[in-house]
Amino acid sequence: METILNLLPLTDSERADFLAAAPNDDHVFCPSPDLTFTSDTASLDKIARATVILGCVPPHMLTSCTGLKWLQTWSAGVNNYLTPGALPQGAMLTSAVGAYGQAVSEHMFASLLALMKRLPAYRDHQRAKEWVDEGQVKTFTGTTVLCLGTGDLGSHFAGLVKAMGAHTVGLNRHPDKPVVHMDELHLLSELDAWLPRVDVVAMTLPESPETIHLMNARRLALMKPDAILVNAGRGSGVDCLALADALRAGKLWGAALDVTEPEPLPAGHPLWDCPNLLLTPHIGGGDHLPQTVRNIVAIALDNLRRYTAGQPLRNRAL
Amino acid sequence: METILNLLPLTDSERADFLAAAPNDDHVFCPSPDLTFTSDTASLDKIARATVILGCVPPHMLTSCTGLKWLQTWSAGVNNYLTPGALPQGAMLTSAVGAYGQAVSEHMFASLLALMKRLPAYRDHQRAKEWVDEGQVKTFTGTTVLCLGTGDLGSHFAGLVKAMGAHTVGLNRHPDKPVVHMDELHLLSELDAWLPRVDVVAMTLPESPETIHLMNARRLALMKPDAILVNAGRGSGVDCLALADALRAGKLWGAALDVTEPEPLPAGHPLWDCPNLLLTPHIGGGDHLPQTVRNIVAIALDNLRRYTAGQPLRNRAL
Repeated sequence: METILNLLPLTDSERADFLAAAPNDDHVFCPSPDLTFTSDTASLDKIARATVILGCVPPHMLTSCTGLKWLQTWSAGVNNYLTPGALPQGAMLTSAVGAYGQAVSEHMFASLLALMKRLPAYRDHQRAKEWVDEGQVKTFTGTTVLCLGTGDLGSHFAGLVKAMGAHTVGLNRHPDKPVVHMDELHLLSELDAWLPRVDVVAMTLPESPETIHLMNARRLALMKPDAILVNAGRGSGVDCLALADALRAGKLWGAALDVTEPEPLPAGHPLWDCPNLLLTPHIGGGDHLPQTVRNIVAIALDNLRRYTAGQPLRNRAL
Repeated sequence: METILNLLPLTDSERADFLAAAPNDDHVFCPSPDLTFTSDTASLDKIARATVILGCVPPHMLTSCTGLKWLQTWSAGVNNYLTPGALPQGAMLTSAVGAYGQAVSEHMFASLLALMKRLPAYRDHQRAKEWVDEGQVKTFTGTTVLCLGTGDLGSHFAGLVKAMGAHTVGLNRHPDKPVVHMDELHLLSELDAWLPRVDVVAMTLPESPETIHLMNARRLALMKPDAILVNAGRGSGVDCLALADALRAGKLWGAALDVTEPEPLPAGHPLWDCPNLLLTPHIGGGDHLPQTVRNIVAIALDNLRRYTAGQPLRNRAL
């Protein structure tokens, strides 16, 4: 018999589904309404007894959980749990990859479109009670959008810009494998050759040694003078100081960042009052779109059914 | 032989096309780069001699133009020229209806999506250098968008929200005639029954006695408490003071206005600092999208060819 610590914010019917999926196990429900673990609602004692955890307990609170066999995160990224010793030897780790595509891609798309139509500048004029024409705007017709990262987020995003008339080019490590909504796929190592040819660079990359400061000063300078940079992957993918310099020098049409390095962005960071930058505080994902939470619950429920049936789990990271 | 006063901002190749379209006529080119008539570039003398004008001369400057046979505007609306006596008896009037659909609908869509993702609020936080989470956002999945006006603008707009997953309902005076991108069509007179059932009300109506203050306090109160109002038709379509009251009372998710009553919005108007309002200064159309100008030129050129060939003109208003 497993002891399943379930931190997911469930509807009544979803809770019944989890009970039915593992009818012989002990279910401990400690819902965290906003996908943030709180030690008040799920005490260390409950964690210590758990053999299965559905949700994200901070790694430093897992040290007492010596019997843990499987952790299903509500996050798409699982880097925190991959450090040696973070999980007991042999424990399985599965992520919620696939749950965030709609939310994050729509946020990226909304931010990009806002920049193309100069809405941040118009918002500033509105706050200053000024009726000012900001001049020409952009459209997707005839543009090429370069997607760095072609997973759940990048593919969803490509579908949105394609619907508006853009041509989509995805860069990854396995361009021979088709990705829905990508008109072309090429190796990420060809990035330098693509940057001068595209109108939008949209980043959804996870953090890895290869992606840290991928968009550095040299590569930002390779972009078209009126191109737009969007990042909703990890903040470290862009050299934020180099981007601030480029924007201040008027070298791009603009940039939209939902992630920064570091986060939260500290007071006094040059990005705060950069021209032509739209900055949001890493809110593209999380539980900001109700549908995302339902997606996470569905992935966890499907995996619990597989676990109970002794079948392979989806989204295995360990 | 006609004397054609051509105020359009033309490329070299477009200019050659106009000369070829009417090779036996006298062409007077006075390009107005930003679609605003300037009396410097086209003097009253030139206007007085013109028998054909391609572009918008203010009506009060047309009184000397007694030989005018045809006016092709670069605007979609022609109300200014419909006043008795504005044009010589028997003169034809054609508009640029169809040129603005992409530009205006994309601006409406960008503004709507920005509100759904709370980007105006995030922009305000950015200016204040605050890293603040604004909570839940919206998506188009499962929503119904009500389009008041189903012409060039409304149809284009419906196509954009449909691509994002919305169900589109158009209201007009001839719902038996299909309109592309509209999932349903009904009579505008059924508006009151539709308002409580939709998530977005998108207005692209021209000004007429029936449309003035169509969205008044009573109808705003019929909308869902978290619905969004968008207006890019004419400012008079919405009772702006009633909308300001509704927004201040927290009765809607938000509103996006590219048109207001009056324009420009005067200092001290309650709309300026209304919560959850995104205000832009009537910039959705005009020449803000370069493609729009090319569309206008194409309409005027096609009509000049028809005029020379003695065929019926498109977009006839008189």
